[in-house]
Amino acid sequence: MMKEYNSVSEPFLADVRAVVGDANVFTEPEKLEQYKTDEEYDPRRFRVPEAVVRPANAEEIAAVVKLCNKYNVPLTVRSGGTSLADGAIAVCGGIVLLMERLNKIIEMNTEAMYVVAEAGVRTVDIQKMANEAGYLYAGDPCSAESCLIGGNLATNAGGSKAVRYGVTRNQVYSLEMVTPTGEIVEVGSRLKKCSTGYCMEQLVMGSEGTLGIITKVTLKLQPMPPYRFDLLAVFDDPFKALDVVPKIMQAGLNPTSMEYMDNSYVRACADYIEFKGAPHYEDGIYVIITVETFSEDELDMKMEQLDELCEAAGAVEVLEADDRIWAMRRNCQESISLVSKVSLTDDVVVPVDRIAPTIKEIMHIGSKYPFPIPVKINAHIGDGNLHIVLCKCDLDDATWEKIVHDFHEEVYAYAYAQGGRLAGEHGIGAKKLAYMEEFTPAGELELMRRIKLAWDPNLILNPGKVFNA
Amino acid sequence: MMKEYNSVSEPFLADVRAVVGDANVFTEPEKLEQYKTDEEYDPRRFRVPEAVVRPANAEEIAAVVKLCNKYNVPLTVRSGGTSLADGAIAVCGGIVLLMERLNKIIEMNTEAMYVVAEAGVRTVDIQKMANEAGYLYAGDPCSAESCLIGGNLATNAGGSKAVRYGVTRNQVYSLEMVTPTGEIVEVGSRLKKCSTGYCMEQLVMGSEGTLGIITKVTLKLQPMPPYRFDLLAVFDDPFKALDVVPKIMQAGLNPTSMEYMDNSYVRACADYIEFKGAPHYEDGIYVIITVETFSEDELDMKMEQLDELCEAAGAVEVLEADDRIWAMRRNCQESISLVSKVSLTDDVVVPVDRIAPTIKEIMHIGSKYPFPIPVKINAHIGDGNLHIVLCKCDLDDATWEKIVHDFHEEVYAYAYAQGGRLAGEHGIGAKKLAYMEEFTPAGELELMRRIKLAWDPNLILNPGKVFNA
Repeated sequence: MMKEYNSVSEPFLADVRAVVGDANVFTEPEKLEQYKTDEEYDPRRFRVPEAVVRPANAEEIAAVVKLCNKYNVPLTVRSGGTSLADGAIAVCGGIVLLMERLNKIIEMNTEAMYVVAEAGVRTVDIQKMANEAGYLYAGDPCSAESCLIGGNLATNAGGSKAVRYGVTRNQVYSLEMVTPTGEIVEVGSRLKKCSTGYCMEQLVMGSEGTLGIITKVTLKLQPMPPYRFDLLAVFDDPFKALDVVPKIMQAGLNPTSMEYMDNSYVRACADYIEFKGAPHYEDGIYVIITVETFSEDELDMKMEQLDELCEAAGAVEVLEADDRIWAMRRNCQESISLVSKVSLTDDVVVPVDRIAPTIKEIMHIGSKYPFPIPVKINAHIGDGNLHIVLCKCDLDDATWEKIVHDFHEEVYAYAYAQGGRLAGEHGIGAKKLAYMEEFTPAGELELMRRIKLAWDPNLILNPGKVFNA
Repeated sequence: MMKEYNSVSEPFLADVRAVVGDANVFTEPEKLEQYKTDEEYDPRRFRVPEAVVRPANAEEIAAVVKLCNKYNVPLTVRSGGTSLADGAIAVCGGIVLLMERLNKIIEMNTEAMYVVAEAGVRTVDIQKMANEAGYLYAGDPCSAESCLIGGNLATNAGGSKAVRYGVTRNQVYSLEMVTPTGEIVEVGSRLKKCSTGYCMEQLVMGSEGTLGIITKVTLKLQPMPPYRFDLLAVFDDPFKALDVVPKIMQAGLNPTSMEYMDNSYVRACADYIEFKGAPHYEDGIYVIITVETFSEDELDMKMEQLDELCEAAGAVEVLEADDRIWAMRRNCQESISLVSKVSLTDDVVVPVDRIAPTIKEIMHIGSKYPFPIPVKINAHIGDGNLHIVLCKCDLDDATWEKIVHDFHEEVYAYAYAQGGRLAGEHGIGAKKLAYMEEFTPAGELELMRRIKLAWDPNLILNPGKVFNA
């Protein structure tokens, strides 16, 4: 049963304006239009918000949240608007809250290795500031140029360095948030060790704005390994390519990233960036591995070991991966646009040792449906995260939706049987909510619901996301 | 306001017996007497439970929890009984639940690097099994020989390898638990990356049995670094000793552990293990550093770098730390018994860069009180965790309690002002509950309370622990 909300009314807007100022409340249709979607492509999933509010700080946000509770108006937070799961779409109406004015890096301390930033700072700005001081902020989602750090926490964003450093939730000491009832609370602490009450910062991270609005974050910095190499191992068989992963992990080589591109991607991306002479263009499957170290000796040694492990796994060739190889990897998404205006990227995740059978099964399932182009897969294979890309091309809407849905049902059922989950890094949002309800065991879902209701009794924050509260 | 519970009644016991069998319900006074305390020394804090129940599996536990809800009887879980925070004492009466029959290691998979074990398995047995296969389970509390893995998760135990590998919560993929209302639910997954709903496994870990009874765990294994050295840097000034910590972290040396012993410990421990000729016995302050690597070259290089950093920080001498040095460190606690029958070990934690001023302030605060022996400190300095030891010697009870309380009030206030917390690894239990209520911001405590009430509406699980629900 869906909760009923009130429409945004003039009295509500007047109260909100009194908090954030007239200039920071938008109700003009052409302005609202800009916030009807995030990275969602399907107009049928767009929703124009009733108002857009741009607060300056946590205090204003707390006051706005209190008003939303008072007037029974739902609130959807928009961070960088890069969600692939309809996370920033106000699916139940109400207001969209912009975080862009909370854009200050408050403190960077290199001695103690941390950064304090407001939630609306761009991830790339934190990365750059750390880099310039000789340190690393290890969160690195592909959208780092445009996403905001608060959104990274809210979705527990993954990215390219997760094999070595973990995902966003592993980069965070503490966070300040506005609770669903409008209190400002800090959870977590700048500690390496803590057994003092409930670990609520980890609960809030990944809750996609349903348990609180993150307003400030304290992030870990890492020492920057000065030495790096990128290796490209080319395989002619996906199973050989995937077989090398556990070997590398068991050897303690601690790679920063391990990326996989199937041959359809190798071709599409080489074409897209116009890289003539891409190695093994015709039939190569790529595994790109980055290793970073604190000494040249360690680098040489690891390079040699990696080379041996790839050869032993049956690599056709092992090369240094130069910038062009990484450019190919970075343009996976864009390369699709050459072949299909509309495409869908999925984000299923499985245990690392289950990737090989999962890829095999996905290809098998895909072959049963009339997709105009065979299913394409690129993957963060070091962490079990598969991006499955489906292309619509000239399919009619009804057929496309039906086969996408049926394909996903089969893929998710298989992934769950392997111990996998719906989303490795994109989140559930509104887009996968029905699957979330379908595939999550009832007992687990009930525990989530109880937390949501306990913190957000009026269901004000981001309704229609993750699961039905 | 304390909740009122019912006493354990015959009808309740009859129902419990029907679940676990007559042989697994104890009500004989001499048997109950064994479960009146854990590592608590003060008889005034003991409490004899009304009954002790020893279930065989999660299903039986779920049935017992349902009966506790039905009869309004509180339930306290006892894991290894090694709590230093009165965690296993049934402070509100009711039953104590023993986990000792859930003692099977269900699966070890070295290829995928994980172990599945029931919650009542001894931590040391998991460590040993992993070691024998050439892998590492990186959780390593000092009580590993006697504690059980479920208790490690419940308290988020720390230990000697936390600098490199993190604390218990970082070693866990997923856990099965019985909820406070008696459902069996699995939370978490064997994934390196996941953005699929709320991260409840991290919430349950560290909740000290108040949010669920952990029955099964899936733990990460690490590749075992084959090379290791232990270095002892001796200082004549605590601030020089502490100054070396950030330098080591910034250099990316990634030590496994960094331990600190003040000179009073150096003397007491050398005396206790009868180590004549302990280096700088008279005035040395010890920093013991362990580094482990995957190659001999890396070991040599790091050893050299460490030596240089310690010399530069003003170490009086840098030596290899042999077994006797580690034996000293391991016997810190025991060495106290030579000078005082009753002593109290505290567990405050601060940000790593705030250790030096915190130790200075603790010594200063300590000097204001008439402790028979000056305050002693040993510390996991790589993670900011200080063990402050107070000795009662011949003080009368009233004076001892008063000065311990006043000293702690001052120390905790200072630690919180540094961004610290009450407990780094021992937990809050019943012992620090009043301090928890005093020092935790009201908004944070309110969020914890709401979760507790949402999951445990009848306040059945481990009442009187962590905070007042």
